[in-house]
Amino acid sequence: MSKAVQTAVLGVTGYSGAELARLLVRHPHLAGKSPVFVGRVEPSGIALGEIHPQLIDSRGTGSLRVQPFSWEILADREVEFLFLATPHELSREIAPEARKRGIRVIDLSGAWRLEATENRAVYGFEDEGSVAALQAQAEAVYGMPELHRSEIHGAGLVANPGCYATSVILALKPLIAAGLVDLNHGIVCDSKSGVSGAGKAPTAKTHFMNAADNLSAYGVFTHRHTGELLEQLGVESESITFTPHLLPIPRGILSTIYVRFGKRQTNASIEACYREFFKTSPMVRFTGTRLPQIQDSVRTCYADIGFNLAKDGHRAVIVSCLDNLLKGAAGQAVQNLNVMNGWGESEGLE
Amino acid sequence: MSKAVQTAVLGVTGYSGAELARLLVRHPHLAGKSPVFVGRVEPSGIALGEIHPQLIDSRGTGSLRVQPFSWEILADREVEFLFLATPHELSREIAPEARKRGIRVIDLSGAWRLEATENRAVYGFEDEGSVAALQAQAEAVYGMPELHRSEIHGAGLVANPGCYATSVILALKPLIAAGLVDLNHGIVCDSKSGVSGAGKAPTAKTHFMNAADNLSAYGVFTHRHTGELLEQLGVESESITFTPHLLPIPRGILSTIYVRFGKRQTNASIEACYREFFKTSPMVRFTGTRLPQIQDSVRTCYADIGFNLAKDGHRAVIVSCLDNLLKGAAGQAVQNLNVMNGWGESEGLE
Amino acid sequence: MSKAVQTAVLGVTGYSGAELARLLVRHPHLAGKSPVFVGRVEPSGIALGEIHPQLIDSRGTGSLRVQPFSWEILADREVEFLFLATPHELSREIAPEARKRGIRVIDLSGAWRLEATENRAVYGFEDEGSVAALQAQAEAVYGMPELHRSEIHGAGLVANPGCYATSVILALKPLIAAGLVDLNHGIVCDSKSGVSGAGKAPTAKTHFMNAADNLSAYGVFTHRHTGELLEQLGVESESITFTPHLLPIPRGILSTIYVRFGKRQTNASIEACYREFFKTSPMVRFTGTRLPQIQDSVRTCYADIGFNLAKDGHRAVIVSCLDNLLKGAAGQAVQNLNVMNGWGESEGLE
Amino acid sequence: MSKAVQTAVLGVTGYSGAELARLLVRHPHLAGKSPVFVGRVEPSGIALGEIHPQLIDSRGTGSLRVQPFSWEILADREVEFLFLATPHELSREIAPEARKRGIRVIDLSGAWRLEATENRAVYGFEDEGSVAALQAQAEAVYGMPELHRSEIHGAGLVANPGCYATSVILALKPLIAAGLVDLNHGIVCDSKSGVSGAGKAPTAKTHFMNAADNLSAYGVFTHRHTGELLEQLGVESESITFTPHLLPIPRGILSTIYVRFGKRQTNASIEACYREFFKTSPMVRFTGTRLPQIQDSVRTCYADIGFNLAKDGHRAVIVSCLDNLLKGAAGQAVQNLNVMNGWGESEGLE
Repeated sequence: MSKAVQTAVLGVTGYSGAELARLLVRHPHLAGKSPVFVGRVEPSGIALGEIHPQLIDSRGTGSLRVQPFSWEILADREVEFLFLATPHELSREIAPEARKRGIRVIDLSGAWRLEATENRAVYGFEDEGSVAALQAQAEAVYGMPELHRSEIHGAGLVANPGCYATSVILALKPLIAAGLVDLNHGIVCDSKSGVSGAGKAPTAKTHFMNAADNLSAYGVFTHRHTGELLEQLGVESESITFTPHLLPIPRGILSTIYVRFGKRQTNASIEACYREFFKTSPMVRFTGTRLPQIQDSVRTCYADIGFNLAKDGHRAVIVSCLDNLLKGAAGQAVQNLNVMNGWGESEGLE
Repeated sequence: MSKAVQTAVLGVTGYSGAELARLLVRHPHLAGKSPVFVGRVEPSGIALGEIHPQLIDSRGTGSLRVQPFSWEILADREVEFLFLATPHELSREIAPEARKRGIRVIDLSGAWRLEATENRAVYGFEDEGSVAALQAQAEAVYGMPELHRSEIHGAGLVANPGCYATSVILALKPLIAAGLVDLNHGIVCDSKSGVSGAGKAPTAKTHFMNAADNLSAYGVFTHRHTGELLEQLGVESESITFTPHLLPIPRGILSTIYVRFGKRQTNASIEACYREFFKTSPMVRFTGTRLPQIQDSVRTCYADIGFNLAKDGHRAVIVSCLDNLLKGAAGQAVQNLNVMNGWGESEGLE
Repeated sequence: MSKAVQTAVLGVTGYSGAELARLLVRHPHLAGKSPVFVGRVEPSGIALGEIHPQLIDSRGTGSLRVQPFSWEILADREVEFLFLATPHELSREIAPEARKRGIRVIDLSGAWRLEATENRAVYGFEDEGSVAALQAQAEAVYGMPELHRSEIHGAGLVANPGCYATSVILALKPLIAAGLVDLNHGIVCDSKSGVSGAGKAPTAKTHFMNAADNLSAYGVFTHRHTGELLEQLGVESESITFTPHLLPIPRGILSTIYVRFGKRQTNASIEACYREFFKTSPMVRFTGTRLPQIQDSVRTCYADIGFNLAKDGHRAVIVSCLDNLLKGAAGQAVQNLNVMNGWGESEGLE
Repeated sequence: MSKAVQTAVLGVTGYSGAELARLLVRHPHLAGKSPVFVGRVEPSGIALGEIHPQLIDSRGTGSLRVQPFSWEILADREVEFLFLATPHELSREIAPEARKRGIRVIDLSGAWRLEATENRAVYGFEDEGSVAALQAQAEAVYGMPELHRSEIHGAGLVANPGCYATSVILALKPLIAAGLVDLNHGIVCDSKSGVSGAGKAPTAKTHFMNAADNLSAYGVFTHRHTGELLEQLGVESESITFTPHLLPIPRGILSTIYVRFGKRQTNASIEACYREFFKTSPMVRFTGTRLPQIQDSVRTCYADIGFNLAKDGHRAVIVSCLDNLLKGAAGQAVQNLNVMNGWGESEGLE
């Protein structure tokens, strides 16, 4: 087994941060090297177990301290890999400085995912055009190993994809890359996410009374993940309509995706396309014509993808499921860590 | 106030039957005429309150008896309107005989909704082609007052629409009737329903462990309500894709519908189209560009419809919500009763 | 039918306020007299339907305006009955002034429920000992018609009971009043409430991620409703232990209550005790040895009470269910309005 | 690391069986020895992943076959430890035969938990008094390591405790063993369990419509786990009242337990009692006066126990949480396997 590397997590109090902590402390390649947990606003020295009681175990995970963030701590502990589970704006500030210090960064925010300035506009970053931002942006790699494995391997700054974007891009990329999809007809992505996707801050939207026994669409034609779809799938804005919905469940995303094929397809031709594309991708479970459901992928680091084809052979419904906190966030981040280190891609993710 | 009519309900043990009972015993036009509750399989003489404890009230609703079904009881009680909340096959048997006896029927099953034989094939009725079935089919009216108010008024047999079909047809009919929708581009209807839509029988699908914290698509390209969409909207099978999903909530349907317009539209033009279409329809609440959510319509007899238009003016997302047991079943059935009697269409539904 | 009275509601934006609005606009004795909705902090002139979309109906309920509170509005509209669905402190301020102006008050807060100063200490009212507070306290009647019907009839200030307190007191009072319960042994009240009981403010506790798929006890030995139990049941603090829990459901309370009898009892003796006590109480549904469950009482204004007796004849488990927003708040408030006016106690509550 | 042992699971299709499979395939001491999965009624040779899609992983767990049960298979594979996740009656039949063949058995059913014939009567076993049953009963050890660690170490037949019983016994045993509890006053155990406790068979009770948005008490004074409380705690039937409830969540148990102390206690005296009792028990997380909640223990193999003491020093409320499928079933079974083999008690359980 290769030498353990030293990791750090900034922003462990949120839902993705907790999952990162859980994965890292049990990662077989990190045995013996406790991750460094640092925070900006947390009470100094609070224990992980006070924030996340479910992380308390007999190995002492609950006793690990969250320390106030400083570059000195990272230097003292010789941190090589820094996970940012932070607000976008904070990632814009921290990542460039980390790169200067030679630390490799895996950023879970939306700060560095988008290449085109017009797509980033939705975030309204104040540092657009600064040298630091331009440099970081230039070296950022979109952290979806199924699409960009080799670039991720050597990357200094990996932009971990959005949860919705992961579920849609993995389902569509194989078909679009193979030239099967008739883009003139327009693609519809109807996505539904559990409440953890809305974050830990108590709001009217996340109040139990509003979320439970309910379903609502939001961000229609305006959701921030749309830019990731356009860039990664290489389609025009008018060719794809993406609608997120808030599901009354804690976690999990299901995307129902509607495409039309230029030429008549068969179950076999679609299956072959997916199997070929994912043949070296351990974190995608292709289910063929059996459609996945949210339960199967929740609390796993897998994305599940299945499809049904209409009798006419021209229309397909693709269903894509994942856990928004794992394959949609922390799981994919650790998958990227594996790729960056040349470890088995599924190490510590099962 | 007009003279009360005598009603009967066959099949009061299911979820729609319970809602029918609740609406009928409180209907202002039925005051003084207790509905007759009859059953095929229920223990003889069981009280409503034993089946549905939540119906027990200080007026004695819980003490009303469910009697074994017989034509004699209906005759003795001079039943004029018979609601069938029964399996499809039973409705095929009961409705023609009721018509012979001069009873007007409101059927909540799928027995009489479809005109085209090929669309009905999905039900596999054994009596297809029989004289009784042909006669009943010939006089059956699709019971959506917003589309067929005047035919329902005089109808002897009203086929109450499917719950999914109601949510989709009400959302699309105004736009299609006005010629706005580009049918060549294809319409996508992504619908989500609470578990009551799957019926009262305990199955693996309705087990709490499978339904809770989950979401699943089913019946892709094959759901029985598709025929209603085709017939009522007048579109070809290849022009519309309908995918139902099972939501982890007790009741409510939300349909997210994707259309493309032939000509560029504005919010104002779309609003005008809907307002004109529904101007005399009290049971539709058009919400404009504020999208409805399931909570707003659950436990009401309304359908809520809103929309968002893309900046390009060519794509719209329409969101349609209703309670599958009310506007999607019992509420619409009572609305039909109101129309058949010339009463205010919303009487007893608020 | 008696002349309609003019009512007003202060605090219609909360959950109980919405239920009050729903009940009052449909109350048969209030037909023709729209309730006056007033608020302290709501945007001036906001429509009910904007706050509570589910209240929009074809009668125009959704268009009713919430006006800024002032004594002039109440005077202009000749308000005779004022419902306070307000924070405790605000009720302490408003109720005495309303009484001076001759308005009868039904207060849904905890401001006036407790007679003993030491029991009220838990609220920390700043006006304790002021003349206005003393006067209001002196005339306040605990608004549980099943216990205090005749005092409520003539009362100027009715203190609507707490939701937990209602569920526990109704279950215990008949047995304690009959002298059956061995108080030396101690009574245990294990109560569970849906999330609406925690109020509309978004907090960590009401966040979907914390409330869903969870159960937690809180306020052990310290909950504010304990004083109501002591005063209304006439027991010592050490004789009763009350533990509330937060259930992952929107509404409903179930209390499981454990008592020991001094003398051996039978099912028949217990049933007789309850039936006698509640013989003139239409809003209690006594279910005998069939235990009620939350679903049966939710969205009704009833309290459901059942029991099981141990073979030894000395121990009983009593289960009491109600909807915390209805029999536990708005429903009981309207029941009090009925009693205050000499109307049928269940009018408008079914 | 010690030599891996060969395990087998009979009854992998249920909820506990799935958790057993998940734990065993990842157990560090079983690396390299795939558990043998055998079934009685499953289609021959069905893959684990077809029954439990969430178990499919890149190690091939989903491809493991469930083979028809036979003693030959167990012999061929040299099975040393047999887990029975089977109905009570089947365990009564299988366990004695397994013992004859020298296989050590960990039985998750209720077949062998109770020593006293009168306590077992509730199960109605037909083989009571047979030689095989008497022999098996005689060697059966109640499989709660916190109470019977040393007997379990050498046991041939371990009776894994009931889920409710585990949550109650762990909470009460330290206090009762120390002589603190006044048994004359009576103990109340108010327990609430998620729906997985009701099993995988679709029934009216487990139907989503009945379980969701609901809470109900059941089995009052009659639940089968009561006998375990009596035997393990050494109290008389009249001294303890146990009421289970069905919670609208998939998994997790919370027991709220009410005791009275003979002598006045302090937080410190109670804490000392618990800490002493559990000082060598890694699978109990004692939380002191911070009460645990269900979420913290779900999907862990821990039992969480906390308490609050009344000001009078005589009454305490103890809250005990665990995952009914893990510490309440599969987790405790693997904990027993660890103890039987002299491995670290928490191996494979974190």
